[in-house]
Amino acid sequence: MDVRAEGRRIMNELMGDGYVEKKDTNKNTFNEAIHSYSEEVCFGRVWARDGIDRKTRSMLNLAMLTALNRPTQLAHHVEGALNNGCTVEEIKEVLLQTAVYCGLPAAGEAFKIAENVLRTQGHLD
Amino acid sequence: MDVRAEGRRIMNELMGDGYVEKKDTNKNTFNEAIHSYSEEVCFGRVWARDGIDRKTRSMLNLAMLTALNRPTQLAHHVEGALNNGCTVEEIKEVLLQTAVYCGLPAAGEAFKIAENVLRTQGHLD
Amino acid sequence: MDVRAEGRRIMNELMGDGYVEKKDTNKNTFNEAIHSYSEEVCFGRVWARDGIDRKTRSMLNLAMLTALNRPTQLAHHVEGALNNGCTVEEIKEVLLQTAVYCGLPAAGEAFKIAENVLRTQGHLD
Amino acid sequence: MDVRAEGRRIMNELMGDGYVEKKDTNKNTFNEAIHSYSEEVCFGRVWARDGIDRKTRSMLNLAMLTALNRPTQLAHHVEGALNNGCTVEEIKEVLLQTAVYCGLPAAGEAFKIAENVLRTQGHLD
Amino acid sequence: MDVRAEGRRIMNELMGDGYVEKKDTNKNTFNEAIHSYSEEVCFGRVWARDGIDRKTRSMLNLAMLTALNRPTQLAHHVEGALNNGCTVEEIKEVLLQTAVYCGLPAAGEAFKIAENVLRTQGHLD
Amino acid sequence: MDVRAEGRRIMNELMGDGYVEKKDTNKNTFNEAIHSYSEEVCFGRVWARDGIDRKTRSMLNLAMLTALNRPTQLAHHVEGALNNGCTVEEIKEVLLQTAVYCGLPAAGEAFKIAENVLRTQGHLD
Repeated sequence: MDVRAEGRRIMNELMGDGYVEKKDTNKNTFNEAIHSYSEEVCFGRVWARDGIDRKTRSMLNLAMLTALNRPTQLAHHVEGALNNGCTVEEIKEVLLQTAVYCGLPAAGEAFKIAENVLRTQGHLD
Repeated sequence: MDVRAEGRRIMNELMGDGYVEKKDTNKNTFNEAIHSYSEEVCFGRVWARDGIDRKTRSMLNLAMLTALNRPTQLAHHVEGALNNGCTVEEIKEVLLQTAVYCGLPAAGEAFKIAENVLRTQGHLD
Repeated sequence: MDVRAEGRRIMNELMGDGYVEKKDTNKNTFNEAIHSYSEEVCFGRVWARDGIDRKTRSMLNLAMLTALNRPTQLAHHVEGALNNGCTVEEIKEVLLQTAVYCGLPAAGEAFKIAENVLRTQGHLD
Repeated sequence: MDVRAEGRRIMNELMGDGYVEKKDTNKNTFNEAIHSYSEEVCFGRVWARDGIDRKTRSMLNLAMLTALNRPTQLAHHVEGALNNGCTVEEIKEVLLQTAVYCGLPAAGEAFKIAENVLRTQGHLD
Repeated sequence: MDVRAEGRRIMNELMGDGYVEKKDTNKNTFNEAIHSYSEEVCFGRVWARDGIDRKTRSMLNLAMLTALNRPTQLAHHVEGALNNGCTVEEIKEVLLQTAVYCGLPAAGEAFKIAENVLRTQGHLD
Repeated sequence: MDVRAEGRRIMNELMGDGYVEKKDTNKNTFNEAIHSYSEEVCFGRVWARDGIDRKTRSMLNLAMLTALNRPTQLAHHVEGALNNGCTVEEIKEVLLQTAVYCGLPAAGEAFKIAENVLRTQGHLD
């Protein structure tokens, strides 16, 4: 198995066909090492593993990115969670649980970010 | 439904029969408000909800408590995860995913904490 | 006492008449649980308590929201602090103290956010 | 005014007579710069200021040190809060408020740390 | 030595001639204490020290500001790092190392912020 | 080049001969994935790179691990920093700089942790 190819394949499954190829057009000598890290370590090495399914991995990411205060990547992973089969209700439940553990300011921001993605993608009226 | 009774019931399901009653013996005028908060808000209000199952909630907590750097509660929730049906392999996968998002120091500590609980509970040779 | 009504009453006292009613217009099936959490847990359960006054609670929030890196909610609570009777000098002192404990980057951002609110509200020339 | 002498005077007022002199015995060429930073920047420059009283500064510290996950210094500042006139009830209220904003794991640990100090100092039965 | 004058001199060396004088025009009774803190504590007291060179201090700041999730100040210190003699390759290596320790979301954001500064300043094609 | 072998070689250079072999004796089916991650991603992929020298990488780690509140790994990397040629004075300067950016509580703890390692290793009287 080619770790990089496997990582790129999973990224496209998560974020939509052509996602990786679009990112390729932004690569340069400065940022290529972090792009490779994402493809090979994050997706090829960890997301590629069995043991828990992709939908669960997506829910874990929503919780962690809320805890870590990373709004840009939270928005991406709300999209990814939908692509991996999470329902709007499941996303809501994950974010509500963050209110208890990460605090209301973290959860409140996460709800706003997720709501924006859900509306853009036609999942809210 | 009595939110507090429901929360206490779920805490015992998560942590083992008699867990809440043991905590009751430590209550006093100083800490009773945080105990009530835990019973009513954390467990009665959030863990009591449908939408995602208890096992998934446990995995979310392992990820969040690693991100939040809270070793004492991480150890408790490794126990809770086992009681909620998580396998050793699933716990391993959750914690490995934290390495990518929360960093290796966070994940490395989480593995040590979880390994200690798993060994104490007879889940590792 | 109705916890939710009490929470909503306190939110309006803190943020200005009509604040809660305006938020109501943004509620939907996705975000209603976090709105209820805010009204009932944050304001109805905690802000409603005696023991420390509202002005002190506002100052605690300025310090915590700076530590937690939550600029949007910090801006709201600068407004709330003014409504709760904090002077510009008191807000300055709270934020300066965060420089020592949370670091200069956190404090520097907090000063900019607060200055912007203070100027908008006519508290700075 | 000598900033360092003023800082040392305030440290002793906060933590008890002889506190600074005891710390002096641990100074060496490695750690003297951080001791001076504490005396001159933290206490001589910031705690020495007017604008908010010492008791309020203590409460702010309890909230910030909980948010920042710093248990050792939280314990010291519970002592300091008592010396600055905070009541047990006020300490309880500050820490309960952290549950909403910093999350329950942070607040739960803070309550345990504070309870231990309060008991050692004879403030709890 | 005048600590404030020394701090202001170093700020201009780091960020470019006239940087401090431009900041002076934004000073007012609200924010002057944090400006003084920056000039006297951050630059006059710490950056002014020998023991490690300015270029190393800049690289430490890139790593810390990534860990602390402070994008605005990270952008300033990418500029400062260039002024202190860091090469584009060195900045890349520092940020790649943050991926391992602070997590990929932190490092990914830091790369975007740095790339933007580097391009604006003509260091990337 | 074999990434894993390279990572293991660098770990031994950083932490002392036999360090990796000693860690091998603690491996099991639960923790082997995080050990491999450390050997291959952290050391084989990132520490193995040119562009900045090992001593600088050690200093970056002291700063990041202080910011991230990871005392156990900070202690290890103080040892590593000494093995990579950092002087006691350089370690002091790195940690003093964290006081400004990460706050005094973070820096104060880091000084205590480092002092303990330095004394154990005979670098302080």
